[in-house]
Amino acid sequence: MIKEYLLNSNKAKELYEFAEQLPIIDYHNHLSVADISENKRFTDIYDLWIKPDPYKHRAMRMCGVPEKYITGNASDFEKFKAWCSTVPKLIGNPLYIWSQMELETVFGISELPNKDNAEVIYEKANLYLLNNEITPESLLKKFNVEMACPCMSLTDNFSVIKNKTTIAPSLRGDDITAPDIGLIHKLETLTNKINNLFDYKRSIQNRLDEIEKVGCRFTDHALDNGFKFYADDGENDKRFELLLKSKLTDAKDFEKLFSYLLVFLCGEYAKRNMTVQLHIGAERYTSTRLRTLAGAAGGFAGIGNSIDIKSFTQMIDTLEQGEYGLPKMVLFTLNPADNAMISVLSGSYNKDNVSGLITQGPAWWWCDHKYGIIEVLENTSSFGLLSNFVGMTTDSRSFLSFVRHDYFRRILCDWLAKKLENNELCCGIDDLRILITDMCYNNAKR
Amino acid sequence: MIKEYLLNSNKAKELYEFAEQLPIIDYHNHLSVADISENKRFTDIYDLWIKPDPYKHRAMRMCGVPEKYITGNASDFEKFKAWCSTVPKLIGNPLYIWSQMELETVFGISELPNKDNAEVIYEKANLYLLNNEITPESLLKKFNVEMACPCMSLTDNFSVIKNKTTIAPSLRGDDITAPDIGLIHKLETLTNKINNLFDYKRSIQNRLDEIEKVGCRFTDHALDNGFKFYADDGENDKRFELLLKSKLTDAKDFEKLFSYLLVFLCGEYAKRNMTVQLHIGAERYTSTRLRTLAGAAGGFAGIGNSIDIKSFTQMIDTLEQGEYGLPKMVLFTLNPADNAMISVLSGSYNKDNVSGLITQGPAWWWCDHKYGIIEVLENTSSFGLLSNFVGMTTDSRSFLSFVRHDYFRRILCDWLAKKLENNELCCGIDDLRILITDMCYNNAKR
Amino acid sequence: MIKEYLLNSNKAKELYEFAEQLPIIDYHNHLSVADISENKRFTDIYDLWIKPDPYKHRAMRMCGVPEKYITGNASDFEKFKAWCSTVPKLIGNPLYIWSQMELETVFGISELPNKDNAEVIYEKANLYLLNNEITPESLLKKFNVEMACPCMSLTDNFSVIKNKTTIAPSLRGDDITAPDIGLIHKLETLTNKINNLFDYKRSIQNRLDEIEKVGCRFTDHALDNGFKFYADDGENDKRFELLLKSKLTDAKDFEKLFSYLLVFLCGEYAKRNMTVQLHIGAERYTSTRLRTLAGAAGGFAGIGNSIDIKSFTQMIDTLEQGEYGLPKMVLFTLNPADNAMISVLSGSYNKDNVSGLITQGPAWWWCDHKYGIIEVLENTSSFGLLSNFVGMTTDSRSFLSFVRHDYFRRILCDWLAKKLENNELCCGIDDLRILITDMCYNNAKR
Repeated sequence: MIKEYLLNSNKAKELYEFAEQLPIIDYHNHLSVADISENKRFTDIYDLWIKPDPYKHRAMRMCGVPEKYITGNASDFEKFKAWCSTVPKLIGNPLYIWSQMELETVFGISELPNKDNAEVIYEKANLYLLNNEITPESLLKKFNVEMACPCMSLTDNFSVIKNKTTIAPSLRGDDITAPDIGLIHKLETLTNKINNLFDYKRSIQNRLDEIEKVGCRFTDHALDNGFKFYADDGENDKRFELLLKSKLTDAKDFEKLFSYLLVFLCGEYAKRNMTVQLHIGAERYTSTRLRTLAGAAGGFAGIGNSIDIKSFTQMIDTLEQGEYGLPKMVLFTLNPADNAMISVLSGSYNKDNVSGLITQGPAWWWCDHKYGIIEVLENTSSFGLLSNFVGMTTDSRSFLSFVRHDYFRRILCDWLAKKLENNELCCGIDDLRILITDMCYNNAKR
Repeated sequence: MIKEYLLNSNKAKELYEFAEQLPIIDYHNHLSVADISENKRFTDIYDLWIKPDPYKHRAMRMCGVPEKYITGNASDFEKFKAWCSTVPKLIGNPLYIWSQMELETVFGISELPNKDNAEVIYEKANLYLLNNEITPESLLKKFNVEMACPCMSLTDNFSVIKNKTTIAPSLRGDDITAPDIGLIHKLETLTNKINNLFDYKRSIQNRLDEIEKVGCRFTDHALDNGFKFYADDGENDKRFELLLKSKLTDAKDFEKLFSYLLVFLCGEYAKRNMTVQLHIGAERYTSTRLRTLAGAAGGFAGIGNSIDIKSFTQMIDTLEQGEYGLPKMVLFTLNPADNAMISVLSGSYNKDNVSGLITQGPAWWWCDHKYGIIEVLENTSSFGLLSNFVGMTTDSRSFLSFVRHDYFRRILCDWLAKKLENNELCCGIDDLRILITDMCYNNAKR
Repeated sequence: MIKEYLLNSNKAKELYEFAEQLPIIDYHNHLSVADISENKRFTDIYDLWIKPDPYKHRAMRMCGVPEKYITGNASDFEKFKAWCSTVPKLIGNPLYIWSQMELETVFGISELPNKDNAEVIYEKANLYLLNNEITPESLLKKFNVEMACPCMSLTDNFSVIKNKTTIAPSLRGDDITAPDIGLIHKLETLTNKINNLFDYKRSIQNRLDEIEKVGCRFTDHALDNGFKFYADDGENDKRFELLLKSKLTDAKDFEKLFSYLLVFLCGEYAKRNMTVQLHIGAERYTSTRLRTLAGAAGGFAGIGNSIDIKSFTQMIDTLEQGEYGLPKMVLFTLNPADNAMISVLSGSYNKDNVSGLITQGPAWWWCDHKYGIIEVLENTSSFGLLSNFVGMTTDSRSFLSFVRHDYFRRILCDWLAKKLENNELCCGIDDLRILITDMCYNNAKR
């Protein structure tokens, strides 16, 4: 990859030279805690580079690659070659450049993969993995990651990351708000007997105390396409009892219990000074065939309609009126049409002495490309405040995805430099260095 | 502020040199009619600059400034200092530059406010106010305002602005479509007894005649988040009677009466050749806490979901079929995702010999920044016609906000110049001068 | 028109020199099949240039031109002059430049029309038509059209285009999914007796076989504002029987039958390897007055709200699970706020060995301007794949609209060149030539 990638002016390069030195804080991702825990040594490029990355699977499908070579029974090398053959068709898509960044940063391979060089790259990379001890720890070090926060569930064994100085969990809370008997039983073995909603909440509090001890500062919840908030109608004790008896069946009842539990949890988060990430607007039900074939997170999700903002603001208002008030919130939008609506909320709720109580998060998932990143920056700048921006996070399943912090920083520096040169910012370059440090590092660290 | 602010080419500067000479017509704002009427002399920069500006309050809240220093019981200077301390954190937000423009244009102060120079600026500015007679009139003159149209209600005393040559009212019609007993009683004292809907409409007509006499050419109505149009079902006489008895309680009934009265009013506006501004898509209910603390217009409103366009076009269609046909309409969108949908309506309704019967208005409220302004210009240009654009208006509560016309003109000139240089317009620079005159002055004047 | 129109760099010009040589495939338009069939000689510029073009009528209405001069009883020259007088007011709108491109390409007239030169242009153009045999065939040749696909209905006489080597029909399917008695009777005369839904489907299959024989590879269906998909509830045989007796009256029943028939048709298309175009999101009911005056396609349609994506993805999922699986689909969005939501679906459904099973189509209808085209390109590039883009099509009623392919290619080349120069693509210029060939020609040809 060329050194000037995405940098189009001397000012952009000047800012980037500064930004690239900043350590990475990746406060939300889906890295394998098992791999981190045992500091697994990676020995195969297919395993490390392609297998855990649904973005790549998706791109292959768009190019008509038969499923056999994606999730099917072809050999690892065949699958590797199928991916390499796909890359040249991806011009303009972020995967075209991320793939090059990943290969170059980790393996020192700077050729564009294609069907002809697939074999050479495969051998070269695997030889590299043979001769070098590449592990989660070595990769975090290579990428200058100061802190990474992989998702963990409330019932996970937190002790496995206890002594990792660069790892803290990000609590994935989706199963807590949509509990099933399995979760409840697991919680019971870890905490107290759960006979009713009160017990359930006590059990949750207990586990929150535990995850706090291993450094958890971030939690996340998904508000998928169609989300509606329901104010507590006093019936949730009953609903939970029906749930325990496997007799809760109505979809609306589940939605109401979901709202109730989310409000409860956000109160707990506020009490503990944890930051809540809300991931808004995924439509996870598209192809039933692919869901069966590739699993729920198989890279085929869509983008939902705009969130019902009346309902959403009622939820935040309810939280604000609660005992512990609002926790710090980062709102991620999957539908770019929601950017303004969500960004502007940063001015609708506040707390004395808290800067950036509610902010829009960085461009998320399918939106994490130059186009999406710039849209989020423009919206944050115009409807909110850049200086409160909480920074990039990968949300990725792959240890190589940290290249996207570099990608983000290049885009940010080029964008700011252009505005500076276009007489749009009316500040100095030193002011921008402070701003960049806040946006790429300090705000996430706080 | 630098002279080249936002101007990035010689052509842009050339166009701007021309544009900046044009007088300002600010056809919709919330300036204090009381202050205008008595031509109040301003003696304190906090009173003039910060107190009446919810945008600044909002920015302070985003930065965690305690409410004490915003609407609370801190001293004026403490509040002033809290604002100055906030400014350096606003890089990228329009307030960062507006604040500098306001200070420089009115007080000749060109430093960026911050916590260290707050006291010096405070003293300097107040000394200036002591030595110079700064009043609504002097400010209008300084900003070259040919005509400003502050909002007035139907029950206001119109005579207070009778002899002001640069002032004409813009009728705020929201209370008329959602009448309460208080309004009805006030109207009765000004016009006729109101025993039924017919009387109410007669009373309205009477007051419209009066406001017309003091030069009212613009009216405005808010269609907030969730607006639906209801065709007349013949029940509105009854609804109004229930209202008179304080027995109208159903929200749907109020919505139906709202639709009915809006249709009636638009007919009256059409008859009188008044231009209706529709402000579409605010979500005014966010934080209950801030509503109590800072009032309904306290700077915490959000952006609503997209307007139901089927319902909205049915309303316009209904108006078109009415006795007086369609009044001239300016449609303001708060949700930028609605820009195309609203802009394109300029080609869906028309009237012989009226150019620009329906047009999209300038970027409104939270959207009034470079990003939002350019979006509106692009949409108007692509789905409608630039030459019908009705021009910038501040919609502001602050007498210093006229700097935003300068802001708008710089953006417009730079945007047009860039398109010209990019071989995109295929016209001459003289054509653009005519276009700019229409967009910044002539169309609003007509 | 200047040669550099829209081309702002040497690389852009270099790419365009290559792109302009590529033949045109216009896979969906509304050209008159009657005119094509008889290869009508055009003798009047008003007939050729203005009468069949609702875009121009719309622009005149926006400028207040009385209806008399648009669809009324003014003379052809008066109408021609009304249009010419309108053109100078259109700066920034695509019609301003398209008009110049049309005049220059076909008539060699390079002046900007206005009220003063209208008569001269009228005479010059009509003299040209007198001295040159201008027909559909000569125009297709002039524009280097390799294949044009005008819409035909299932009941049209397909034989009229049998021997046209550059013409193949694009099946307009909207009347099939919303059948009326007239359509059913016409089908009966062409195929079999229709006593029930089974007969109706048989009749459709018969006609699909016929249209396939004259080269039909594309079909299209409109999913207008408010579209909802209904899964088959087993009641559609009954609904069809009620329809035959003119006793189907409920709007919901029509919608359910619509869904049922669309699913059936898409299965037939999949079986026949036809590509389905879905035109999403028009709001065709705006002004009742204009509908009466100018007909259903009179240029006053609006843009609808975002499509219900849950409903839409359920429909595609249903199709995928059908006997013949998914046909190739091109999704056109009229509301630009839907671009991301629709573009991303290209990764949500797939088929082994089919590249680009589902793709977003080019900017459609009111969105077919530089702003809209770039939005679609950015979305396709970021959420889908440029290399799968199916190419520009005019969707137009005018034989002169082929200039829009030139317009599209200039925008595409400039956009790609800029990205290349901004270090954004990291590929070579030769890669872009291949990409452009795919995007402008190969993908549509396949």
